Order: sequence, then C-alpha cells, then structure tokens
Amino acid sequence: MSVLIVGSTALDSIKTPKAENPKLLGGSASHAAVAASFFSRVKMVGVVGNDFPRRYLDLYRRHKIDLEGLQILTGKTFHWSGEYEINMNNRRTLLTELGVFETFNPTLPKSYQASEFVLLANIAPALQHHVLNQMRRPKFVVADTMDLWLNIALPDLLKLIKRLDGFVLNDSEAHQLTKEDNVFKAMKKIHQLGPKYVIIKKGSHGSILSGPRGFFICPAYPLHSVVDPTGAGDSFVGGMMGYLATSRGSIDNNIRRAMIYGSVTASFCCEGFGLTCTTRVKRSQIDRRVKELEKLTRF
Amino acid sequence: MSVLIVGSTALDSIKTPKAENPKLLGGSASHAAVAASFFSRVKMVGVVGNDFPRRYLDLYRRHKIDLEGLQILTGKTFHWSGEYEINMNNRRTLLTELGVFETFNPTLPKSYQASEFVLLANIAPALQHHVLNQMRRPKFVVADTMDLWLNIALPDLLKLIKRLDGFVLNDSEAHQLTKEDNVFKAMKKIHQLGPKYVIIKKGSHGSILSGPRGFFICPAYPLHSVVDPTGAGDSFVGGMMGYLATSRGSIDNNIRRAMIYGSVTASFCCEGFGLTCTTRVKRSQIDRRVKELEKLTRF
Repeated sequence: MSVLIVGSTALDSIKTPKAENPKLLGGSASHAAVAASFFSRVKMVGVVGNDFPRRYLDLYRRHKIDLEGLQILTGKTFHWSGEYEINMNNRRTLLTELGVFETFNPTLPKSYQASEFVLLANIAPALQHHVLNQMRRPKFVVADTMDLWLNIALPDLLKLIKRLDGFVLNDSEAHQLTKEDNVFKAMKKIHQLGPKYVIIKKGSHGSILSGPRGFFICPAYPLHSVVDPTGAGDSFVGGMMGYLATSRGSIDNNIRRAMIYGSVTASFCCEGFGLTCTTRVKRSQIDRRVKELEKLTRF
Repeated sequence: MSVLIVGSTALDSIKTPKAENPKLLGGSASHAAVAASFFSRVKMVGVVGNDFPRRYLDLYRRHKIDLEGLQILTGKTFHWSGEYEINMNNRRTLLTELGVFETFNPTLPKSYQASEFVLLANIAPALQHHVLNQMRRPKFVVADTMDLWLNIALPDLLKLIKRLDGFVLNDSEAHQLTKEDNVFKAMKKIHQLGPKYVIIKKGSHGSILSGPRGFFICPAYPLHSVVDPTGAGDSFVGGMMGYLATSRGSIDNNIRRAMIYGSVTASFCCEGFGLTCTTRVKRSQIDRRVKELEKLTRF
C-alpha cells in the first residue's frame, strides 16, 4: 500500500545560533514523504520551479518517491527563510517567497486517485480540499496544519476538518482553535468538529492521541542535541502514515505504534539541518530507536 | 519501612481565576507526607505556630503521620499566598510571612534518626543539611528544591546535592542550575554534581528519570481539569518515596513504578485546592489510575 502526500515542496534557508544553511530541501511534503518512504511507497503531489536543484529530485528518487504528481513550472521554487532562537523552541520567519506556489493547482495523476492513505501535509486548506476532491475512496485521510491557516483561512480549515479521519496539530494551535487551555478538553472539542483521531504534537514533550480507544501518550525520543527542528512535525506525521499504510490490521490496532515510528523518524530529522540526517538513516536505525523507546517507557 | 520527611508546613492562601481559598493546609512537607502516607508510614519534621488549626493536626493524624518531629511554637504559622494565571502554569507569590519558620531549627526525635528513606522536601538547603546531619545511616536520600534556593543559597544547595542519592527539580530549575537548554544534557551535568538519580519534573508533560539503568520517561496522568497545582511536585516526590520505602527489591527495580505512583498521587492533588482532593482519595483509586497509565502508554 502507498501513501499519497500533498504539501509544500520548498527551499529552506535556516539560521540557528550555531550555523546558517541556505536553500536546503524543505517543505512539509518533502519532509513527510522522505519519512514515509522508510515504511511504504509514496506518491507525492507538489510544485517546484525550474530553479529546483536536480540533486533534490535525485534525492526524492533515491527514496523511491513517485514524482508523477510533482509539477515543475517556469519560475522560482517556494523559498522560506527562518531563524531559531538559542533554545530551538522559538523561530521567526525572515522571508517567504511563494514563487510558483502562488498559483499552484494540484492535479492528481490518474494513478494517484485510488490511494487509500492520504496525508494532507501542511499547506493552504483550500489546496488540501482540492486534492481530497480528486480522490476516489480514500480509507484514511489525515491532515496537518499550521497557525497561519488558523489566522487567515479558518473557514476553509473548519470545512476540511469535517472531512478528515485524523487531524494533527500542535498544542498552541489546538489552544488557538478551541480557546481551551487544557489539552484533553481541546481534543474533545476537536472531535466535535469531525475527526475520529486527534493528535496533538508537543515538540520535545512528545504527542498525544485521542481516538476510539482513548488516549495514547506518545513520548519523544530523548535527544541530547537538536541541530534543526524544521520539518520534525512533518516527519512525525509522514512516518506515522507510512507505517500505517503497510501495517496489517485495523487503524486502531496500529496507530500507537505508527506514532512511535513517526516520533523516532522525527528525532532523526532534528539531528541535522533540513533533511540531511533523515536521508542518511537506515530502517534498522529507526527500529533500534523504537526498541529503545519501549525500554524508556516501561514500568 | 517508614519515610522521614522534612519540609515546610504552612498555611496557603491560593487564588485562581475561578476561586479564592484562604489558609488551606499547605507546605512541601504536608503535601509530601500525605502523598507518602498512602504507601508507607511517615515521620514528619516541621514547625507550626500556635495559630495552627487543630483540624489540620487531626488531618495529619488521620493519615497516620508521626508528629513527634513537628514543633508547635508560640507565634504564627508560615503563611504563603499566591495567585495562578488562567492557564495554571504561571503563578506569582503575593505574600510570604515566615512566622515561626524564621527561626526553625529541626531537631530529630531519637525514633526518627534510624529512618532509611529520607525525603528532604523543598525548604532552605541549610535546614536540609541540618536534618541529614542528624540521620544515622539513611539508605536512600532524596531532595527537592525550588528556584528561590538557586537564587539565594546556591553554595548550600551544591553542597547538599553532593550528599544525595536522588535530586528532584523542575525543568526551568535544571536549566538555571546547569545553564543547559537540553534536558538530557542538563541531567548529565547534575549527575556530575553527585546524585545517582536525577529526576526532572515537567508539570503536565510528566517527568524524566536519569539513573543507573538509563532514562525513564514518566507520563503525567491526563487531567481534564486542574483546580490547583500547588503541591503537585511535593505530592509526586512524596508518593514516590512512600512507594519506594515499602517496595521489596532494589531501588533500580522499583523507582520507575514509584514515579508512576507519585505521578498519579500528584494528579489527585491538582484536582482540588490545597490537600482537599488528595486527603479524600483511597488507595484503590490510585491503583486504578496507575493501571490506566499502563494502558495509556502501551504500544
């Protein structure tokens, strides 16, 4: 089984207190697709400009990511530039150049339309709708989002949430959406908006699932050094969806373990700039960290 | 086996956005002692004034807390008054009246000196030293602290840390002590100061142990409503020490489960003002939440 992933495909210029890295491969779809590729085949939907480095296309291909849905248009690739503060928790956007993203109209190749697992990675909710409208009968649809869409596209987002099986957002976004300080009450309110599965990401504090079998408290892998957290949330949800797409049995039986795999994939993402660490990882290293997490949480 | 607990015994006036409660029973020793009493006998060391309500002495007694080490002096009981912000994470002190605490000189009754489990709950490090000096051969000594002592009594605190088996502090205090943002690196630095076991409390995000068998990621019990978090950290460490004191086998074999019991006891503390909820709890309710936490973390 494969996962269809739509989201942004970008060049990220990332500044941290220790280093500066211009025009790395980034974007929610890139991070999610590479993460998912450890577990399943990935069909990616996105757009890049004709300035998009060939080596990044090769990188996608090395991860066996199906690029039939990746449009290459005349113009510039979406470019985001951001800076992290010393503790790596706060970041500010220095620059956003939409480029070819401004007029992006994702059209799904025929071969994509029957995908059963769909990840609508962070991107404008209108585009997430547009992709979902082209799907035949997806089995499990999950969307991620960001504060920007809560601020400028809330009606679109609320309509999207109704159509989802699972919705993933971080704790501050959950607070913004529900006006609820308590994370468990916030999850209850989000269920009322539609999704059966609600996942709240808490960065280095892990994540929480609320689903038909109740809550699951998912730990983050203990990292002694965070080089660049950009894309960690996308890697988490990408890894989770990739794992789910190839697991036998029900979503309910697999989703906890899928979150753990997502969490571990995200941990590798944090250990290098952009995708540099994630792309070097082997499946066996992921499995090893999953085993470690089992030990770290057992009592 | 019993636990010896020294700390503050106070009257707490607590204001939250929803209610105001004057002169509740509070203090680190009160919270820790009641929490520990669910699992083991407790010998408490503290001081109160002659204004201390009789009903609070009765409350200690109902929990079978040995009060031979509680001094009742002429004067006023330590009174703390604080206010919580709407999200219950930030609090500010409105008033601190030391009263009889100002000249507190904890003298241990003979029957206390052979205690094997010692909890130096939050109190001035000089007093924690003074108690420890009177102990014969404690088997397991743990101390808690607060930012105030890092600010005004750091040399005393550093000397104390050297003498401990376990040191408990929250994440912001760990950062203040080590100047290290990463919690795992901070723990490593704290080990170098002496203790074999380092526990960092992260409020609603749970806690982390670093010990001879590596890390343990301890979840917080999911609470849908936090009425008053005052004393939750004291309840956590009190519950943990109470559980350890009556468990067979090595500390290493029991400390993870002990933290889970502490975490659950702290969850009850948060559900009422001061000790109102904790004192109503039955051991069976604690055991039920521990079982729930097992389910909430299994994958």
